[in-house]
Amino acid sequence: MPSLSLRINLDPAGRIGPGKIELLEQIAAFGSISAAARNMEMSYKRAWDLVEEMNQLFGKPVVSAQTGGRRGGGAQLTQVGLAIVSRFRAIELAAGTVAEKHIEALQAEIAAA
Amino acid sequence: MPSLSLRINLDPAGRIGPGKIELLEQIAAFGSISAAARNMEMSYKRAWDLVEEMNQLFGKPVVSAQTGGRRGGGAQLTQVGLAIVSRFRAIELAAGTVAEKHIEALQAEIAAA
Repeated sequence: MPSLSLRINLDPAGRIGPGKIELLEQIAAFGSISAAARNMEMSYKRAWDLVEEMNQLFGKPVVSAQTGGRRGGGAQLTQVGLAIVSRFRAIELAAGTVAEKHIEALQAEIAAA
Repeated sequence: MPSLSLRINLDPAGRIGPGKIELLEQIAAFGSISAAARNMEMSYKRAWDLVEEMNQLFGKPVVSAQTGGRRGGGAQLTQVGLAIVSRFRAIELAAGTVAEKHIEALQAEIAAA
């Protein structure tokens, strides 16, 4: 199915795209960076590097890690992490809606070939 | 400045993004694939491969080449080539408008850090 994929370019030189958003969503869902990484078939190092890239870009953590306790090592999104996910998905939904008829018309050019 | 970058994913497995769109616009502007490639600091082969990828995807040429005559070798966009550019730019404009306040809010998170 035809679709739109989006990336947000922020100052200075930070890009937020579908991969980072999916990672944040998986971290929120599983409460764990390592479970998120496993589920996305990504190394823990790669997942952590992506989180750290966002931490650096925003100048504050996008994921907070709980250490110790019965569920030690759990992770959850911070306020800014949650804002990144929800604003990205809002943009995606609104952009997909305004793009729909144009994308259908381009897809129809292929079908008509 | 913060911005949105878009890619359109078409069936089967075709992607149209800012690079291909800029190439088509440059071909339209200069009437020549080689001048467009030069202007984008891209090899002629690379430019031609991108054009050919779009020709294959759409099942018809996106650029038509004129051979012979005083201005032999000139190139212009076909109807489908023109449609790709104008629909992509329309999506970009509409999506940028709906995304604007979300992107500003994310950029403000960085400024507030």
